[in-house]
Amino acid sequence: MNKGDYSKYTKRSIRSLQPYQAKEMPCKVKLDANESPYRPLEETMDKLSGIPLNRYPDPGAKELRKTIARDLKIAPDEILMGNGSDELIYYLIIAFGGPVLFPVPTFSMYGIISRALGEEHIGIPLDKDFDIDTGKMLAAVKKHKPKLVFLSSPNNPTGNCFSSDRILKIVEQAKGIVVVDEAYQPFSSDKGFVPLLKDYPNMAVLRTLSKIGFAALRVGFLLGDKGLVREVNKVRLPFNLNALSQAAALEGLRDRRAIQSHVKAIASERGRMFRELDAMPGINPYPSEANFILFSTDNAHALYLKLIRSGILVRDMSGAIRNALRVTIGTPEQNNFFIEALKKATGRKK
Amino acid sequence: MNKGDYSKYTKRSIRSLQPYQAKEMPCKVKLDANESPYRPLEETMDKLSGIPLNRYPDPGAKELRKTIARDLKIAPDEILMGNGSDELIYYLIIAFGGPVLFPVPTFSMYGIISRALGEEHIGIPLDKDFDIDTGKMLAAVKKHKPKLVFLSSPNNPTGNCFSSDRILKIVEQAKGIVVVDEAYQPFSSDKGFVPLLKDYPNMAVLRTLSKIGFAALRVGFLLGDKGLVREVNKVRLPFNLNALSQAAALEGLRDRRAIQSHVKAIASERGRMFRELDAMPGINPYPSEANFILFSTDNAHALYLKLIRSGILVRDMSGAIRNALRVTIGTPEQNNFFIEALKKATGRKK
Repeated sequence: MNKGDYSKYTKRSIRSLQPYQAKEMPCKVKLDANESPYRPLEETMDKLSGIPLNRYPDPGAKELRKTIARDLKIAPDEILMGNGSDELIYYLIIAFGGPVLFPVPTFSMYGIISRALGEEHIGIPLDKDFDIDTGKMLAAVKKHKPKLVFLSSPNNPTGNCFSSDRILKIVEQAKGIVVVDEAYQPFSSDKGFVPLLKDYPNMAVLRTLSKIGFAALRVGFLLGDKGLVREVNKVRLPFNLNALSQAAALEGLRDRRAIQSHVKAIASERGRMFRELDAMPGINPYPSEANFILFSTDNAHALYLKLIRSGILVRDMSGAIRNALRVTIGTPEQNNFFIEALKKATGRKK
Repeated sequence: MNKGDYSKYTKRSIRSLQPYQAKEMPCKVKLDANESPYRPLEETMDKLSGIPLNRYPDPGAKELRKTIARDLKIAPDEILMGNGSDELIYYLIIAFGGPVLFPVPTFSMYGIISRALGEEHIGIPLDKDFDIDTGKMLAAVKKHKPKLVFLSSPNNPTGNCFSSDRILKIVEQAKGIVVVDEAYQPFSSDKGFVPLLKDYPNMAVLRTLSKIGFAALRVGFLLGDKGLVREVNKVRLPFNLNALSQAAALEGLRDRRAIQSHVKAIASERGRMFRELDAMPGINPYPSEANFILFSTDNAHALYLKLIRSGILVRDMSGAIRNALRVTIGTPEQNNFFIEALKKATGRKK
């Protein structure tokens, strides 16, 4: 056997896959990953020293679910916790199977995980305003009969919310489960779909703590009818959420005021950033309801590299949208640093 | 639609599944889950307060893999980290597919995860000494051509190591990947299979920190040829190991002396526990190389309930092995408490 070539062991559908590459690059200002720039719980983290490391974590994450249930005015058995919402996407596709349908461009994991699981997946282009192309999506729903539809709203990487009525039209027509991924909902003026869950039994909502200050913990959750949650729970690993993350998330969620004030600061900075970008010649930002702004420019990749040389990491989205970069909203200081570097890099001011 | 009944959405292979139920029961002495009774790092846990919670964890878990590689004298790219070895079992079956073959009784997750993924799985009974039945296993290898074979050694719940030559015979004959699950290897006098990995390219080893004091963290790892690791890495979620667990595991592994002294104490207590159990009429313990002892008795379930009433939680394994209970080795005090309660419950002393 040719040592090192293991593809003959691997399922055919997996062979040509590449592992997801999370970009790692040293930088002064990290604005590429849609994290929060605010670091919570620096002081209270020492409470974690009370956790017995030798014991398995609570498999039901009961305290955490109870806290989330109270916040969202739903029941704990309408919540399923995941090791990040990534893991829940895995479980959803394992439980319900494909075809998996989603608009494109969107969060890459829907396609990546579908492929890992060997399930058919279909990407339908968004319309020119980055909203759902209702005609094309409904035609695809009818044709492919997807077991799962993923709608990221606010959408990553475009930043906009999809129209509520278009989302609900998909939910009504789909015979499968429609998952509204609200990773960025806290930054949006839209109230989101949690209050509508009881009216649309085949709809589910994904949320995460990763964008509001807790990316390190890997805590995501699925919200939906308890029957839906029960099905997905059948394929969940019993100890998928470690004890430290459970405890830290619980501490974090209890301090609603801190989370709210950070979210508000980011939304406000997003407004300022948009105006600054919009005023720069050759830079075309798209309106955003998320903690990032997508903008297009002449030669995005060259600009991306220039920014790196200034110590600023943003995300080059040119693979999905022609000549587009995505910048995460940072602290006011980080944003100023970015704006100055951008002005310097583009070599012009209005 | 009948709200609450979601099984029509679910893949046929998932419908009749039940979620894994990790038993949760208040008790004074918890000896059911094969955790370590020793709680590490109580003091150094406050180092975690230095971790920026708002940032995504290192997707490559580089420091952790470097440390493990050094300890095991292998290369970092021969290691894949998992959110517990459970998650790695998921990834192995996703990447290589079924049929999945294993002896029974063994760790239940091989079967549970195969079923969740809709893959065929075959359990071949162990021989009367709880060792691999070479004839039957090789016949199954020939007949079913498994893509994956799982061999837990020391085996859970029987506690014994399988004969090395029988394991290697399976490895030699199998056309697929053979995974030796060494979750309990640190408690064994056997050196394990890591030193043999380079000679058997279709063999891989699973290890975990869950039994040596760090169950709360959910850290497992797969060891094997870098080509094998590369294939499984294709289906790994990029941020599957949260930052707190990475940091705590790193601290923990650096203190090799503490781990070693706890492992030694547990192995020594296992010897004493075995002698105590063996001397009790009606209690038949099986020799163990793990951090637990399986024993059979007349009416295991009644004894299980009596022990609970004494505040002691063990694991009732009667579903897998007739009238058998599994007791995790605790601290000397916990073990004494268990022995006394057992004597009282069985109502007889020699």
